[in-house]
Amino acid sequence: MIVLFTDFGLEGPYMGQMKAAMLREAPGISQVDLMADAPAFDARASAYLLAATALAFPSESVFLAVVDPGVGSDRGALVVAADGRRFVGPDNGLLAVVAGQAQSASAWRVTWTPERLSASFHGRDLFAPVAARLALGEPPPGEAVAVDQLVGADWPEDLAEIVYLDRFGNAMTGLRASSLPADSVLCAGGQKLRRAGTFSDVAPGSAFWYENANGLAEIAANQARAEQLLGLKVGDRVELARDETRNDDA
Amino acid sequence: MIVLFTDFGLEGPYMGQMKAAMLREAPGISQVDLMADAPAFDARASAYLLAATALAFPSESVFLAVVDPGVGSDRGALVVAADGRRFVGPDNGLLAVVAGQAQSASAWRVTWTPERLSASFHGRDLFAPVAARLALGEPPPGEAVAVDQLVGADWPEDLAEIVYLDRFGNAMTGLRASSLPADSVLCAGGQKLRRAGTFSDVAPGSAFWYENANGLAEIAANQARAEQLLGLKVGDRVELARDETRNDDA
Amino acid sequence: MIVLFTDFGLEGPYMGQMKAAMLREAPGISQVDLMADAPAFDARASAYLLAATALAFPSESVFLAVVDPGVGSDRGALVVAADGRRFVGPDNGLLAVVAGQAQSASAWRVTWTPERLSASFHGRDLFAPVAARLALGEPPPGEAVAVDQLVGADWPEDLAEIVYLDRFGNAMTGLRASSLPADSVLCAGGQKLRRAGTFSDVAPGSAFWYENANGLAEIAANQARAEQLLGLKVGDRVELARDETRNDDA
Repeated sequence: MIVLFTDFGLEGPYMGQMKAAMLREAPGISQVDLMADAPAFDARASAYLLAATALAFPSESVFLAVVDPGVGSDRGALVVAADGRRFVGPDNGLLAVVAGQAQSASAWRVTWTPERLSASFHGRDLFAPVAARLALGEPPPGEAVAVDQLVGADWPEDLAEIVYLDRFGNAMTGLRASSLPADSVLCAGGQKLRRAGTFSDVAPGSAFWYENANGLAEIAANQARAEQLLGLKVGDRVELARDETRNDDA
Repeated sequence: MIVLFTDFGLEGPYMGQMKAAMLREAPGISQVDLMADAPAFDARASAYLLAATALAFPSESVFLAVVDPGVGSDRGALVVAADGRRFVGPDNGLLAVVAGQAQSASAWRVTWTPERLSASFHGRDLFAPVAARLALGEPPPGEAVAVDQLVGADWPEDLAEIVYLDRFGNAMTGLRASSLPADSVLCAGGQKLRRAGTFSDVAPGSAFWYENANGLAEIAANQARAEQLLGLKVGDRVELARDETRNDDA
Repeated sequence: MIVLFTDFGLEGPYMGQMKAAMLREAPGISQVDLMADAPAFDARASAYLLAATALAFPSESVFLAVVDPGVGSDRGALVVAADGRRFVGPDNGLLAVVAGQAQSASAWRVTWTPERLSASFHGRDLFAPVAARLALGEPPPGEAVAVDQLVGADWPEDLAEIVYLDRFGNAMTGLRASSLPADSVLCAGGQKLRRAGTFSDVAPGSAFWYENANGLAEIAANQARAEQLLGLKVGDRVELARDETRNDDA
């Protein structure tokens, strides 16, 4: 299965042409849209989203990941293998978090170039054919590179920032819930947020955080938009607060 | 064929992860997006839309239907078979209209639970695997339940309300055109609306109703947005008016 | 492969029902969304977009092209073959540019009618089954018609207008870059625009034009929205300016 993760949107001819390029090379391979609305031009926030959401896919999946503000410049192209899953995309940090969080990871710098490479659409012309060939079982068309040489190799494993706002106004952080003490209190938008199991555990209109279906700490509100309630946007810091109430109780 | 009907939107990782869950279980089965923009959190309006739009699909189709404001609560999970088509979704009324309109209908309460069930994403973790297995020919993984025991079993077969506004500003009602006298006059947004065959049958800027391609009475306007012209929103009542002009003529 | 090009949007049941109609006729044929956001009701702008974006697809592809403000009227239905690629759609100019730009083109007027034809959704009821059968290798179900008899046969091969604004604010023209002198200066929104190779070749905030990944002259701005910077919309004229600076230099 080839899984598409981009900031292209579903508008315009971009996704379709990229899919057709893969279908041409690998007609029998299923393609699944994971996200077309990754944070636009934001390889760092997108990297944490990709690492979390990729875990729901079978380990033999190939991910075509394109958030690529530097297209047309001389940024490199990568294949990363992380705990079996393989990722194709630009060397701008987008694949660094998935490599950093993995038990085992390898990377290759893509040296293959297509016959026809447009300046603005490497997703279709370069990354898509590479992903298709990986899905067919071919080896990465490039040279091995140490994972610690990737752009973003020095980024933390978890990011204490908002990385995505969904259409319901929920705010995903780059923090894996498993990396936080179970009774952590998060602070965002000037408000302290306790952990809850699910939406109906708190009063209507109240904000909280919970472990979302992809394992990330997500800030939400019962029957309200956390984004508006707390004035959140992608890139906002999230602090781990000292839980004073609990300390008083102890 | 598995047909997806949700209020998830196409943004975010939700649709893709749900599709991957089905592809994993049933790799050879086609998946088609019917709607991802069913009225959000509105199982009742969505139920009438689902019943009308499902009829265009082959009778062996399996529908994954998720409009589920109660996810994480103790609402039940259902399989409904209606005139051959099978539907998987929450027991909140979403599947009640399709059952109520059918010539023959059966229902099962899902008792199977997945190994890993997130609190917030039963679409991916519970309903998707059940739909995939039905599509593969497996029986409903649960216990038969009488159709009149479903939430929404007491809802009417047709709903005299706006259930969907499309991107062109057309307003679908929950009324099947076949349930209305042929020369009915509908009243919505304070205006009386005559039936027309198609858009070009009325003057530009005029509103009317017609039988849409899914058999529903739909309120539209020639070269204008009926939604704006009449100030309509989902949930607004539609009245069957006494047609005075015709009465005068008679 | 069947490629879908429409102005239907991805909202609502329209795309899904059209895809299911094709899947029913041609279950083994892949379907790819090229665009669902072609300029709404604008067969002329859409025709230039279709001609440019179709070239990225294999020559055996079948295109289902529906931008059809006249649905329900007596406009004809066509199959066009252009350099191997086949197109199904309304006879309103949408398929005229692809025919006009081709080395060799043929056309057929569709005479087949489906058992059930709704007044408002020929995409699903008429064009989709025809496209599916073409993809299966069947001949066009109609009578040959001369290409110069199609609506739009008198339209120019290139259109000096904005035909599409993408989500990044870039403005595609209907001019193939290959049809312009290499150092052309375009004039749009009252500003003269020089050609650049890619975004980073110009100063941040500056507008320019370049050959996009589909061969069209596209107006863009580095780290800014050309659409806003220049106040552009679909249908705006683009002029080929006399390049005074270069003339002074010569």
